[in-house]
Amino acid sequence: MTRNAVDVPVALLGYGTVGAAVHRLLDEQGDEIERATGHRLRVVRALVRDVDRDRPCSPGAGVLTTDFATIRDDPQVRLVAEVMGGLDPAGDHVVELLRRGTPVVTANKQLLARRGPELFEAAAGGGVQLRFEASVCAAIPVIKVLREALVVTNVHRVLGIVNGTTNFILSAMEGGQTYAEALAEAQRLGYAEADPAEDVGGLDAAAKTAILATVAFGSRVPVEWVEVEGIEGVTREHVAAARAMEMHVKLVARATLVGDLVDVRVGPALVDARHPLAAVEGAFNAVMLQGDAIREIMLEGPGAGGIETASAVVADMVSIVGTTGTGFLQNDPVWRELGRLPAGELASPWYLRLEVEDRAGVLARLAQELAAEGVSVARLVQQPADGHAVLHVVTHEAAQGGLERALAAIRALPESRGHASALPVVSDRGVEELGWA
Amino acid sequence: MTRNAVDVPVALLGYGTVGAAVHRLLDEQGDEIERATGHRLRVVRALVRDVDRDRPCSPGAGVLTTDFATIRDDPQVRLVAEVMGGLDPAGDHVVELLRRGTPVVTANKQLLARRGPELFEAAAGGGVQLRFEASVCAAIPVIKVLREALVVTNVHRVLGIVNGTTNFILSAMEGGQTYAEALAEAQRLGYAEADPAEDVGGLDAAAKTAILATVAFGSRVPVEWVEVEGIEGVTREHVAAARAMEMHVKLVARATLVGDLVDVRVGPALVDARHPLAAVEGAFNAVMLQGDAIREIMLEGPGAGGIETASAVVADMVSIVGTTGTGFLQNDPVWRELGRLPAGELASPWYLRLEVEDRAGVLARLAQELAAEGVSVARLVQQPADGHAVLHVVTHEAAQGGLERALAAIRALPESRGHASALPVVSDRGVEELGWA
Repeated sequence: MTRNAVDVPVALLGYGTVGAAVHRLLDEQGDEIERATGHRLRVVRALVRDVDRDRPCSPGAGVLTTDFATIRDDPQVRLVAEVMGGLDPAGDHVVELLRRGTPVVTANKQLLARRGPELFEAAAGGGVQLRFEASVCAAIPVIKVLREALVVTNVHRVLGIVNGTTNFILSAMEGGQTYAEALAEAQRLGYAEADPAEDVGGLDAAAKTAILATVAFGSRVPVEWVEVEGIEGVTREHVAAARAMEMHVKLVARATLVGDLVDVRVGPALVDARHPLAAVEGAFNAVMLQGDAIREIMLEGPGAGGIETASAVVADMVSIVGTTGTGFLQNDPVWRELGRLPAGELASPWYLRLEVEDRAGVLARLAQELAAEGVSVARLVQQPADGHAVLHVVTHEAAQGGLERALAAIRALPESRGHASALPVVSDRGVEELGWA
Repeated sequence: MTRNAVDVPVALLGYGTVGAAVHRLLDEQGDEIERATGHRLRVVRALVRDVDRDRPCSPGAGVLTTDFATIRDDPQVRLVAEVMGGLDPAGDHVVELLRRGTPVVTANKQLLARRGPELFEAAAGGGVQLRFEASVCAAIPVIKVLREALVVTNVHRVLGIVNGTTNFILSAMEGGQTYAEALAEAQRLGYAEADPAEDVGGLDAAAKTAILATVAFGSRVPVEWVEVEGIEGVTREHVAAARAMEMHVKLVARATLVGDLVDVRVGPALVDARHPLAAVEGAFNAVMLQGDAIREIMLEGPGAGGIETASAVVADMVSIVGTTGTGFLQNDPVWRELGRLPAGELASPWYLRLEVEDRAGVLARLAQELAAEGVSVARLVQQPADGHAVLHVVTHEAAQGGLERALAAIRALPESRGHASALPVVSDRGVEELGWA
């Protein structure tokens, strides 16, 4: 243990909610950090757009600057945390710092998902670390766990609820609200933005999923590979059918390694009430990692928030100080080049909701169309509804492509009343064990 | 990134299931480890009792030895993993190695819980790390997360299911089995030892709880402080009452920081079905960490198993290589001295099961006895049973001492039929929201 703390001057890019919280944590928890690392991290500069703006906490005299060069060119700055957000100018600043040999911690998910290769190349060139825990699920230490605790476990599947806004909305819909009511409540409580498109459309989850897949599989997974479906199409009927089968509708992020190919997707799914992800309620996030040596490990916690994000930023700063000079994790997490699994090839059990005319022979026709595409029925419940019939079908594992062709054929049947929809099912149990209340 | 891997010769103490798995992981995952650390870890020695015993995997010529001195005195050995178990001679070996400046990784929960202070003193004296992830919940990286990811979060509560055997038995009892039947099944499946006392009596969980509390609170928490109750007294009636209230009976480990005092306990509790711990089924483990900056983070996964334990041992070895020479985590996790909360002071909501004569005035007497000790009733359900009445009571938060005094008074009432029992309730919801089916 280092008995005399060595001062480590650090700089922040940005001094908003997260930046101010990072500063506060570094000050208030200085003793803890010194115990862990032998060092005391001291904020000496913070880049802002306007030095004179009113701020709830003052960072101290001379700390704020509008001139990036005073940070970049200050030889005493040993470590920089980027908490300004946005792609520009954050991206260029980070690249410059890394190239010059200054390690960087970033909380910027979009920057990482869009300019990752360039950032890691700059870090390798400068011989320094780029850490990014806060970019995915705030305080949940999933990147650290993947890179440092599960280094020998060959993770082949990542399953997660990585967007708190949509999880809050879906939880509220289980309480009886419509999608529109639940969204309005989320906005009122500050869980959803005025323009909620990035959350409810699945784009925020897609960026996180791309980062998680990249780190878990060690291969660059561009955000463009992620097949994205939002929750805008989820109805109270889906939620009710899910409940009748003891399942929950969740926006599930899935990254799967199939041989040398990767499948990444974000979309609504039915999660078995007995599956660990089912218990993730409200604005919380959870990530489940499945691998050879560990079976599965799940991490759950708050996926957003200023202080939560700041705590992850500080943990990364502490880890950089604790590993500098050892060669540990100074590399890009990417070390191989995997391909993308063709769309439609990933298999899953499915829940289908079909509306058809209520007469003899219809069921046989549906079963035929499903069987023709290799889709095998595990459970089927028929309910009368207003002169026609609603069929709830749970299938065994079936490839998405075949399922979609079967659905198209069913929609085209003269007996179909349209509204045929499908959601994947997430369950550890065999689907035939799922009940219907 | 170090382009030319530096060989790190390592030794194992013990070469049983875990030791052989550590060796295999180090070999098979050598590329991953080199990518993370720039080093290749190579097993050069392994201490065993009998070199000539038949082993499923051979460690290679000249690796096995029965002579500890050949490991201790070999200057090329840079790191040792203790996977032999037991207190003796493992403890003395570890102390000797640490004192001489060899970092050690141990999977030995009892050694750590019983000789922790001595081990960390030896590590400090030798200026090297002692890591112990595998000693608690196998592959679940809770120690790493506490020490490296949550360094600035002031964790004040740890809540966990840390024994897979008892969790399996309680899950089986929910399926309708008696305690004896469930225990027999656990033994048949290899989840429980022939002598299950350490698991079902809560002693295994107590050692893990002491380690978790020590790391979480940074103060030595001796295993003797843990108030332990096993699951031997859990009946099908408890399980049925729990289900009627949408709760599950679990063996819950709890460590709570109350001001400057610590309360640590292991015992059966009723867990709300909507609480994340309720979803932990079968032989799995989970640990929930509650702290200032993170609200709560939960980690869940397999809590035992040879390969799972080995993966945690290897992760610690990798982390030591990655941080050697930086001063990072070379210290004892203990940095302060907290007291023990007096028995009976910790408050919790409670479930009470009372059997009384079914006649007028009895309810009033019970309510009086509870109120006299400051125990306030949140929900009460009365069921007729064979000429008398069973009362299911859920209380608001009440200190254990007052509750026990009220229970004693109730047992002494002439109307009592005995069998008054109490279990703590774990719920994020207000207890008045808990239902009764």
